[in-house]
Amino acid sequence: MNKQKAYWIWYPGDLELYHALKQNFSRVERGCAWPAFWKSDGFRQRVTYRRSYTLSSPAAFRAVGGPGTVGYVLVNDRKYPLGGEVPCPAGAVRVSVHAACIGCVPAVYVQGDAVFSDGSWTAEDYCLPPVPAACSRYFTESSQRVDEWPMLEKTFNPVRAEAVQGGALFTFETELTARLRIVPRSPGGMPERVFLGESREEALAGDQCYFSCRPDPETGLTPRQALRFAFLPGVKPRDVSVQALHQYVDIPVRARFACDDELLSRIFSVAAHTFSLCCDVFFLDGVKRDKWIWGGDAYQSLFVNRYLTGDREIEQRTLTALRGNDPPLTHVNTIVDYSLLWILGAAEHADAYGDPAFLARMLPRMESLMELLLAQRDENGFLTGRPGDWIYVDWADFDRDGPLCAEQMFLAAALNVLARLSAPEKAGRYRETARQLMEKTERCFWDPEKQAYVDSFTSGRRAVTRHAAILAIVFDLVPQERKRLLAQTVLFNDRVPPITTPYFRFFELDAMCRLGYLREVLGQIKAYWGGMLDAGAVTFWEEYDPKKPAQAQYAMYGDPFGKSLCHAWAASPIYLLARYFIGLTPDSAAPDGWRFDPPDGFFSSCECEFPAGERNICLSLKEGKWARTSKEYKKE
Amino acid sequence: MNKQKAYWIWYPGDLELYHALKQNFSRVERGCAWPAFWKSDGFRQRVTYRRSYTLSSPAAFRAVGGPGTVGYVLVNDRKYPLGGEVPCPAGAVRVSVHAACIGCVPAVYVQGDAVFSDGSWTAEDYCLPPVPAACSRYFTESSQRVDEWPMLEKTFNPVRAEAVQGGALFTFETELTARLRIVPRSPGGMPERVFLGESREEALAGDQCYFSCRPDPETGLTPRQALRFAFLPGVKPRDVSVQALHQYVDIPVRARFACDDELLSRIFSVAAHTFSLCCDVFFLDGVKRDKWIWGGDAYQSLFVNRYLTGDREIEQRTLTALRGNDPPLTHVNTIVDYSLLWILGAAEHADAYGDPAFLARMLPRMESLMELLLAQRDENGFLTGRPGDWIYVDWADFDRDGPLCAEQMFLAAALNVLARLSAPEKAGRYRETARQLMEKTERCFWDPEKQAYVDSFTSGRRAVTRHAAILAIVFDLVPQERKRLLAQTVLFNDRVPPITTPYFRFFELDAMCRLGYLREVLGQIKAYWGGMLDAGAVTFWEEYDPKKPAQAQYAMYGDPFGKSLCHAWAASPIYLLARYFIGLTPDSAAPDGWRFDPPDGFFSSCECEFPAGERNICLSLKEGKWARTSKEYKKE
Repeated sequence: MNKQKAYWIWYPGDLELYHALKQNFSRVERGCAWPAFWKSDGFRQRVTYRRSYTLSSPAAFRAVGGPGTVGYVLVNDRKYPLGGEVPCPAGAVRVSVHAACIGCVPAVYVQGDAVFSDGSWTAEDYCLPPVPAACSRYFTESSQRVDEWPMLEKTFNPVRAEAVQGGALFTFETELTARLRIVPRSPGGMPERVFLGESREEALAGDQCYFSCRPDPETGLTPRQALRFAFLPGVKPRDVSVQALHQYVDIPVRARFACDDELLSRIFSVAAHTFSLCCDVFFLDGVKRDKWIWGGDAYQSLFVNRYLTGDREIEQRTLTALRGNDPPLTHVNTIVDYSLLWILGAAEHADAYGDPAFLARMLPRMESLMELLLAQRDENGFLTGRPGDWIYVDWADFDRDGPLCAEQMFLAAALNVLARLSAPEKAGRYRETARQLMEKTERCFWDPEKQAYVDSFTSGRRAVTRHAAILAIVFDLVPQERKRLLAQTVLFNDRVPPITTPYFRFFELDAMCRLGYLREVLGQIKAYWGGMLDAGAVTFWEEYDPKKPAQAQYAMYGDPFGKSLCHAWAASPIYLLARYFIGLTPDSAAPDGWRFDPPDGFFSSCECEFPAGERNICLSLKEGKWARTSKEYKKE
Repeated sequence: MNKQKAYWIWYPGDLELYHALKQNFSRVERGCAWPAFWKSDGFRQRVTYRRSYTLSSPAAFRAVGGPGTVGYVLVNDRKYPLGGEVPCPAGAVRVSVHAACIGCVPAVYVQGDAVFSDGSWTAEDYCLPPVPAACSRYFTESSQRVDEWPMLEKTFNPVRAEAVQGGALFTFETELTARLRIVPRSPGGMPERVFLGESREEALAGDQCYFSCRPDPETGLTPRQALRFAFLPGVKPRDVSVQALHQYVDIPVRARFACDDELLSRIFSVAAHTFSLCCDVFFLDGVKRDKWIWGGDAYQSLFVNRYLTGDREIEQRTLTALRGNDPPLTHVNTIVDYSLLWILGAAEHADAYGDPAFLARMLPRMESLMELLLAQRDENGFLTGRPGDWIYVDWADFDRDGPLCAEQMFLAAALNVLARLSAPEKAGRYRETARQLMEKTERCFWDPEKQAYVDSFTSGRRAVTRHAAILAIVFDLVPQERKRLLAQTVLFNDRVPPITTPYFRFFELDAMCRLGYLREVLGQIKAYWGGMLDAGAVTFWEEYDPKKPAQAQYAMYGDPFGKSLCHAWAASPIYLLARYFIGLTPDSAAPDGWRFDPPDGFFSSCECEFPAGERNICLSLKEGKWARTSKEYKKE
């Protein structure tokens, strides 16, 4: 039997939902498990898989279920138990595998020369019409367990071992997501407890340290956890050997970027390393702290990922996990704007990869989520929150009286993508709804005197923040002339409070780039990300304030070590540099998926590569001229 | 700490859904697992439980989660891990337990003098408003596992051991749901495989036998399974000891019935035994064959249960499990009429027990299920099936062209109960819809010449079956005069094909009783159930045809041993005798829940008892006079 051709199969979306539950329930903070505080959608527990064959000769196969799965095989009208050899007559044959499991996805694996499981099977859940079964390159062996995502492993030795605070501190060259293997070299070498840190300070902070754990007394192994520093109290460095087994999902970085500006090259490289660490089964916001899958962070990751890995599967896994099942009853992570960003992100994904089967699966979910959103508009047609909903937009001092202007911008943007993707009748309704919404937004939120959108039209306070303006520009919701005006009245107006979160800085820098303020953006990239490198960062941080003293850099959200030092959104220079300074825009209509339109005057030489489907696009700037070639991508 | 007062708590309905998945996935047939073929609703995997206290002095407690549950405890704003001691200050205290679990219900147990978990806590699922947490008398100890329903155990020794077909056949006095404990008395005493049977014939049928299993080589135990006979091939009776460990849910039979007619007393007693065996975690249709929870069977069990055990919890568990989550997307067991019977059953339960909290939880589900049903009416307003739906009504030779008349009767009945239970505005709509439906049914299905309802008005065949007439009578859908007419034109008309299933015989006998044909019904009870007793039944069968030869009595559904020999619906004499011949009707307005209005002339003496809440109602007929008393019910 040729084992390579068979895949584990499951109901589309369900393995993602299962692993999303694992992911969102995996957070541990100072010994307390902290499962995510939003509605967590479950998977189907009863699925039947079917395939018809016309066999030229009798065949045999074996079907197995995942952990805890029960069921049977039907060949025409004859039943067989799971696990045993099943004979199959020649001729027209209907094969089905009936599977049920409470605690995990009822996935099955059918192995045989002629009869084997793959994406050509259908899956049924006894509710919806049959759909193509799902499978993945990660699950191809009958011996695999679908409840464990397969990881690659790389062993790191510490780059430094030192005696400190009566114990041993081990330093690794970079942040890792690793299990430690602790081997005592003498009787006192096995510590009772190990303290892990993204920073030296955290590992040495005792009870303030985010993660501590007891090594398994038999194997000396600790659970997989983010770390760069490990402190072993009461142990002398020479009495113990410590290695880190870095475990990661197989998603290779395919991009390269080197230019004559050494700092930019370093920023790209550290951003790539940072982002790669955050690519787990799903896009994670950061590797250490919450481990929950957040829609807003994931949205920004989509923009980086297409330039860095070109891995469409992690995008599809993340979008699928965030959205959950139909009908939607709550918002993504409870956040209304994250639901809108989910719709926008699903459209971004479709534009970048042009996968019609995935879009066909997502479009009804985009539309049903939009219906939930439209149903909760107020009497003026503005989007507001229901009890329990969170109108987030950003950590900013908004005037939150009545509907918030920025939220309407998100809604208009999401309506516009559905106006483009939906079938004509629905599209027309979405287009008209968006038009009316922008008209009302203009009427209610535009302040003619300030020449800007106010946060609230109900409070009378006429407070202006940057967010509505930025979103109007980024999502192309207003005419060019208005965008240029907003740049002057808001973006370059020092009296408007600055954006303080790197999350929204992404949108602001994107807006500036779209309006052509590339020099200004480049200066900010070098100052902000260059500043982190000067401060010793080996991965980019969740937030960086050069004015803060070094010892205060680790605090966030009221926690002394709450800040993530390896954070996905901090990788945005990859997107900004590739899109605006190299001039590469995803375009599923282009032959290799990229439109290349480089601006002048930023580099005197540059060598870079980006994923383009099965190949890599290679761009080279020499003596003022760009050359565009492509080459086969080979995994290293 | 007083352990008695604390309960395991969970989100209402979720433990039922978890155990319903276990139940519906537990069927095994000749070595093949056969999970139920309908949409199986899952439980919530993320729940938070809350309670506020005002403590006169500091207190401490401990919170634990069920198997696989992770989470933490919050006291005011301070976090503690699950499992450890949690200190609680005096004064106003907010306590919450945050729990998550993928494979089972995230139930928690809080144990302490002042702070402990019970039904006074609330549960939140991050979607709906908080609701009272659920708990049960079955789960009161911290050491319990919520994934295993607690069972009582009683050991039975075989009443007969015989050498036959080269092996040993052991016979027990009655059907059991038991594990066998096989202890060899000499080297050849442990069989490789054991064949179980409800009948001697089945146990000796080899590969045709429904259940065979390998005893655990270490303990000699077999899995819990229905059995009365056990065949051990290749073993001599003297070489082995076999016991049956009957495992059952603690639901005592509280009714007694003895009258001067010995046969009726025996029928009641065997029916009680039969029904009691079918009361597991849920109402099962039978103990052997499919083990799935069926809505139509459960509906009939409601009528027996209130007279026999008065256990409202098994009714609530079964109704909850059948219905699943909102919004409903499919019908109960995929059967449209079972959805309607679910609505009718939930109303029956409310009428019998008057539990406002349960009704408050069910009523929105009754209404949302009704909305699904109303949305699938055809252009004439008649209920038909969507693709994948099953319009069952009965195994009968209906004219199924277009809408089926009997299905409309079910719909009208369900609309009527909602017209009674729903809030006024909704109630008015349901009432009017029912009125219009009956008007249209009268216009389209009533055949003036035959003076009967035809199955189909679209085929032109004008076929008459009994079902529509029976339902019109039972559910009081037509005036008394019409009912009397239908008795003559249909019920007592030999040219209308007889009801052939005991399932629908329940409705037919009920209809006859309602019209006062008690002597006729009593005759049929004695003939049919008495016939089974004459044929050697120790529990009542799924079906009995006196014309079939003895060796053909075990076949059903095309399977030589497909017939269940211990079947819940066969216990209906309990309902018929108690309600119509004793004259006891449930009435939640009556002081002890029963209206007593005995008919004359059926017994010369009678002593009986039925559950009435915490007490038992006792009825005694001596010298033509009934005495009604009550006494405290004490569990034996």
